[in-house]
Amino acid sequence: MELRENERIDELHRCGYRIIQNTKKFCFGMDAVLLTGFVSVKPQARVMDLGTGTGVIPILLEAKTGGSHFTGLEIQSEMADMARRSVELNHLEKKIDIVEGDIREASKIFGRASFDVVTCNPPYMENQHGLKNPGDEKAIARHEVLCTLEDVLREAAALLREGGVFCMVHRPRRLAEIITRMAERRLEPKRMRLIHPMADREANMVLIEAVKGGGRQLRVDPPLIVYREPGVYNREIHEIYGY
Amino acid sequence: MELRENERIDELHRCGYRIIQNTKKFCFGMDAVLLTGFVSVKPQARVMDLGTGTGVIPILLEAKTGGSHFTGLEIQSEMADMARRSVELNHLEKKIDIVEGDIREASKIFGRASFDVVTCNPPYMENQHGLKNPGDEKAIARHEVLCTLEDVLREAAALLREGGVFCMVHRPRRLAEIITRMAERRLEPKRMRLIHPMADREANMVLIEAVKGGGRQLRVDPPLIVYREPGVYNREIHEIYGY
Repeated sequence: MELRENERIDELHRCGYRIIQNTKKFCFGMDAVLLTGFVSVKPQARVMDLGTGTGVIPILLEAKTGGSHFTGLEIQSEMADMARRSVELNHLEKKIDIVEGDIREASKIFGRASFDVVTCNPPYMENQHGLKNPGDEKAIARHEVLCTLEDVLREAAALLREGGVFCMVHRPRRLAEIITRMAERRLEPKRMRLIHPMADREANMVLIEAVKGGGRQLRVDPPLIVYREPGVYNREIHEIYGY
Repeated sequence: MELRENERIDELHRCGYRIIQNTKKFCFGMDAVLLTGFVSVKPQARVMDLGTGTGVIPILLEAKTGGSHFTGLEIQSEMADMARRSVELNHLEKKIDIVEGDIREASKIFGRASFDVVTCNPPYMENQHGLKNPGDEKAIARHEVLCTLEDVLREAAALLREGGVFCMVHRPRRLAEIITRMAERRLEPKRMRLIHPMADREANMVLIEAVKGGGRQLRVDPPLIVYREPGVYNREIHEIYGY
């Protein structure tokens, strides 16, 4: 495996899988890893990851679940190429497809009701003020430059079969908007988990799973506390990371 | 103070206040007390408690906050009478009014935009199946017999001035519905706290505060864990209860 400039290979601590990352572009964070520890993927499920970036979500889900096939959709050509090389690095070409394309076109590209599970670790920030370079990879990953929350929810709802599962990680700050917009798309929140950096701190991430056309009944899981003391992860974080 | 049949007087551990409860009817729970520890009541605020029951919420808020006046609305005649006697017991007649009336008529009774803060510890259960006696006090307090979530939110929104605060305790199970219906009434969730019986258990209550016409930005406070081990309250629960 030949690496390009600024690329490195990281261990994923699952099935011996590894992943290519570019240190000058966007590297995946804890949010993506936590999402893969939260989402319900049933055996044989067909899974779509919207805005897959490095491909970390489909690769980890292949390792952790019994899903039959995984697709990662990525709009940025160089990111899609790097994710595809990570798939090859792990010999997962038969299980994972990386497709270059626009989230906003996803249901046109793949067809409606064609997936059992859709995941997304979307850009969190609405505000594009102060973006010096809105075209760079980090800006695209973090700010709603190329797709909005509304785009993600519309396409997720369209891609899912009735009863299919949508799972996202986002900022609690936007939770009211997320839930309201999910309702408009018949994505009914069924399970939620708040992530707090410490037990006495506000939540800084939320994991939320919705069922297309599901009944109204939300379960709020125990809080996930990242650090049990400064610099020391809680046991559950180690379990999710796999080391 | 003469007590009626099945009535007793309990200490409130705030300002020496006490409260009359009827052991055969509905007694207030931890949910009402936690609500009084969560809601933001600014000095001089006019406060309305919808479905006040024993009157515990206005009495505790009078003790804990600088609000200028408190009203408790209660549809059940005997409960309203008992709450009024608790107000007298604490010599709070000038600060707290107990009004007998229907939540569904609240904005007609009191006028629109007439309060700075509205609180509610509403009936949690939609389902009236299996209710042997839907007219009894416990059923009315727990099930949506006499008013629904929609009634509460509609009247709260009407009673509040622009920028006024609505605060409710409810079941997390219904959180998606709560947030969606709040949005319909321009009650924008601003602050939320999940209550978990133990650190590793699902949430069984949620405290949520919304601002009428507020901007979209939700803060999720640290989780409130009730028991640090079976039967032993966490320090914060003792602080909220005042002993």
